[in-house]
Amino acid sequence: MARWQPRARERLERAALALFVERGYDATTVNDIAERAGLTKSTFFRQFADKREVLSSGQDILIDLFRNAIAHAPPSATAVDCLAAALESAGPLFTPERHELALQRRVVVALNSELQERELLKRARLAAVIADALRERGVDDMAAHLAAEMGVLAFSTAFARWGNPGNRAPFTTIVLTTLAEFQTRAKMLSDKV
Amino acid sequence: MARWQPRARERLERAALALFVERGYDATTVNDIAERAGLTKSTFFRQFADKREVLSSGQDILIDLFRNAIAHAPPSATAVDCLAAALESAGPLFTPERHELALQRRVVVALNSELQERELLKRARLAAVIADALRERGVDDMAAHLAAEMGVLAFSTAFARWGNPGNRAPFTTIVLTTLAEFQTRAKMLSDKV
Repeated sequence: MARWQPRARERLERAALALFVERGYDATTVNDIAERAGLTKSTFFRQFADKREVLSSGQDILIDLFRNAIAHAPPSATAVDCLAAALESAGPLFTPERHELALQRRVVVALNSELQERELLKRARLAAVIADALRERGVDDMAAHLAAEMGVLAFSTAFARWGNPGNRAPFTTIVLTTLAEFQTRAKMLSDKV
Repeated sequence: MARWQPRARERLERAALALFVERGYDATTVNDIAERAGLTKSTFFRQFADKREVLSSGQDILIDLFRNAIAHAPPSATAVDCLAAALESAGPLFTPERHELALQRRVVVALNSELQERELLKRARLAAVIADALRERGVDDMAAHLAAEMGVLAFSTAFARWGNPGNRAPFTTIVLTTLAEFQTRAKMLSDKV
């Protein structure tokens, strides 16, 4: 078998998520995943460190995109403008072909407390990256942290909305609308419910 | 030795933190902690499930206080008023005698990545509790989540400030000031830096 497999990563990811849904995350082995994808175990390990990493696919790319978008936002950009630029930059990762994976992912994570913990840690890492990037633009520490939490909330809310079978708008549209909704809330927290 | 030891919990907590700072968290055993406190291992296990739990001491009490304060805030209270009530209700936990423990705690956690992960999970749990309590008052889902993140940021920032040897103001004063500072930031996120 050739060492290089076209689209091996995506095939493995699809096979893994399908199996996680069918058999449960814990009961699925790397062997199962490779077999379902029609690839070898060593091909799997060239793409992922372990089965858990399949669910973190794209996290590093996302972090780079966010960091870059915030660093290169125009000098006149406000903190929210920077968040919008970051979230918008992630759009190309969320192609229509990935809708199904997002839904499967949600089901798998919802059923496994260890995976839920990993999600929380990933969220925290994302927030830290956004806060750092904002601080480097001169946003003060407290505002940077608060904005970062709002950015992560907008991202995760939008991701859930986008993964929803009833919602077929592009991710970019969804995420910018979601951010604007949080922005309104931020201004209203001191208002009467 | 009597089964019941006065202030056993606090003595164990102080012994544990002192040892974690001196020898490192990983190198300290439950035996070491009990010995330093002048208590038995079985007394330790009547108070804590394991040494990690020593560092989560008070988390459940904090959660109950937050939940209660938000539930019983006056009907006219805004989301930020509810956060203020929650944070203020935690004041009695942070007595002057605990200053030193807060500082030791920070040192220990800063040196151990596993403990940092636990801290992030505790923060997430606290945010979830606040968001739930606000939702039960009729705050909409997005506002509840955003307010909860702001509350947790205010709490953790205030805890760090209070633990700082240079700051001897009461926790309640510090946390309400910190919350007000975040509240100002929330309104300004859309303004030019």
